[in-house]
Amino acid sequence: MLTLDTDLQLALDLVGVFVFALTGGLVAVKKRLDLFGVLVLAAAAALGGGVLRDLLIGDTPPVGISDWRLLGTAVLAGLVTFVFHPGVERISKVVRVLDAAGLATFAIGGSLKALGAGVSPLAAVVIGCITAVGGGMVRDVLAGQVPEVLRREMYALPALLGSTVLVAAHQADRMSVAAIWACVGLVFVIRMVAVVLDVHAPKPLRTGELT
Amino acid sequence: MLTLDTDLQLALDLVGVFVFALTGGLVAVKKRLDLFGVLVLAAAAALGGGVLRDLLIGDTPPVGISDWRLLGTAVLAGLVTFVFHPGVERISKVVRVLDAAGLATFAIGGSLKALGAGVSPLAAVVIGCITAVGGGMVRDVLAGQVPEVLRREMYALPALLGSTVLVAAHQADRMSVAAIWACVGLVFVIRMVAVVLDVHAPKPLRTGELT
Amino acid sequence: MLTLDTDLQLALDLVGVFVFALTGGLVAVKKRLDLFGVLVLAAAAALGGGVLRDLLIGDTPPVGISDWRLLGTAVLAGLVTFVFHPGVERISKVVRVLDAAGLATFAIGGSLKALGAGVSPLAAVVIGCITAVGGGMVRDVLAGQVPEVLRREMYALPALLGSTVLVAAHQADRMSVAAIWACVGLVFVIRMVAVVLDVHAPKPLRTGELT
Repeated sequence: MLTLDTDLQLALDLVGVFVFALTGGLVAVKKRLDLFGVLVLAAAAALGGGVLRDLLIGDTPPVGISDWRLLGTAVLAGLVTFVFHPGVERISKVVRVLDAAGLATFAIGGSLKALGAGVSPLAAVVIGCITAVGGGMVRDVLAGQVPEVLRREMYALPALLGSTVLVAAHQADRMSVAAIWACVGLVFVIRMVAVVLDVHAPKPLRTGELT
Repeated sequence: MLTLDTDLQLALDLVGVFVFALTGGLVAVKKRLDLFGVLVLAAAAALGGGVLRDLLIGDTPPVGISDWRLLGTAVLAGLVTFVFHPGVERISKVVRVLDAAGLATFAIGGSLKALGAGVSPLAAVVIGCITAVGGGMVRDVLAGQVPEVLRREMYALPALLGSTVLVAAHQADRMSVAAIWACVGLVFVIRMVAVVLDVHAPKPLRTGELT
Repeated sequence: MLTLDTDLQLALDLVGVFVFALTGGLVAVKKRLDLFGVLVLAAAAALGGGVLRDLLIGDTPPVGISDWRLLGTAVLAGLVTFVFHPGVERISKVVRVLDAAGLATFAIGGSLKALGAGVSPLAAVVIGCITAVGGGMVRDVLAGQVPEVLRREMYALPALLGSTVLVAAHQADRMSVAAIWACVGLVFVIRMVAVVLDVHAPKPLRTGELT
């Protein structure tokens, strides 16, 4: 099974975990949760997607609660948000770019791990998407709000496209380190384009509009 | 292990998936979610119960994210709801009848699969119920509302009764294709009676009413 | 693997299940759910933490849906709440003490089971906490409210401390029945002190307060 270089994969994972944890911490601060609430939402946002991935492929205990580097990074980001949250909000553009990078590495890394576990191609695509957006969904459900990914932004589609291309390359026996990187870049670029152009997915017509 | 005829089982599953996905799509439309939100809630409603079932019996990856016929049917129903939702709402009586059929096949099919995995009789009953109502619960939690099954209707009780009778037949070594069908019919009929008579489960007395 | 005496462990588990189920039933009554909703929230609060624990360590089907003594106790407590809820509210101080006992036995019992499954020390601590607070989180998410453990009280910290001490003892090869009991007592005492002194975790400064 081809994968990213281990150290690089870990570095990318940690960036994703850190940034996703910042988003979790910010939601918790907005909801006026206490320190524990901030840390839990930070960890849920950062690790929830990977925990779901590991449960879905039967790899227990999930690495997100088992490896101190991941949990430690999430807790650190939660503490940073707790103490410096006005500063974190001020650099929200930087957070958005890093968040797109996290989305990309989580989606492709999730699909790679699922393929390595021998699941069907469809499951590998779905699990990649769940790895990428699952943490944010857990964060929002715990915070009592409809998951942002369902409401506001062209967020899941880049992950879906990238994971699909990756799995297609795997099925065509064209997997390589370059292909993996291309998929990571694809997710990142599409997501950034959506952010910059403020693209949204279409909404259903209101009943009145249709008649 | 006795089961339903495979083709028939699949046909029933697909009907259940399609109808449950319609209910998920309708909730998403009501919440003004975008296209992705409609598709995710459709898939969550249709496949959530089966995914929970498979996680609880340790059958990973869950068939709901692994078999393209199930996921494809759910996505198709989501698209139908997205485009034609006023029409889908207009045939809500038809949806209710099909929903009762989905409830019946999911409950009995879930208990059968759990028995096949060698779980305890109690677990087989519980897993049947979770298969039947779990998708709707995931749908409602993601949509930010208290699960309908906890609030409004005599919905879970038919599933509970049907699964209990099925597991009792299994324990008594009286399992047969006819018994399975009888249980499916039992759930369907009780549910339809509850719909037609507008029967509800009792509510707790208010504190004031008791004193 | 050292564990508590089986009968005693079961007795403690059942006390925890009963009390947690009361809290679930009370939330359901406040939300005006019907009988089924009361029973489901009672079971979710009582068994949710253990079900999450078993999913995270891959022990399926989870004992919470497989052992009739646990589910039966939860359902009994749900019925008690349904019928006698004003009385249950009146003895809320007793419920709080028993709840602290449940928190203690669930946290330590959860970590013990996780250690027995061979997980990493970190995972054993995290799983102990999830066992202790997970049921309440599931209860609150289903009831449509932000989990109380994130909002209001010094609730998770005692569980975290107790599980950490237990796992440290295990790593240092100093595990004994006395050590287990000491950890249970530690969680209980810290929790009760927090209740009596009305201690809360710190909250983030508002943006205005910081500038």
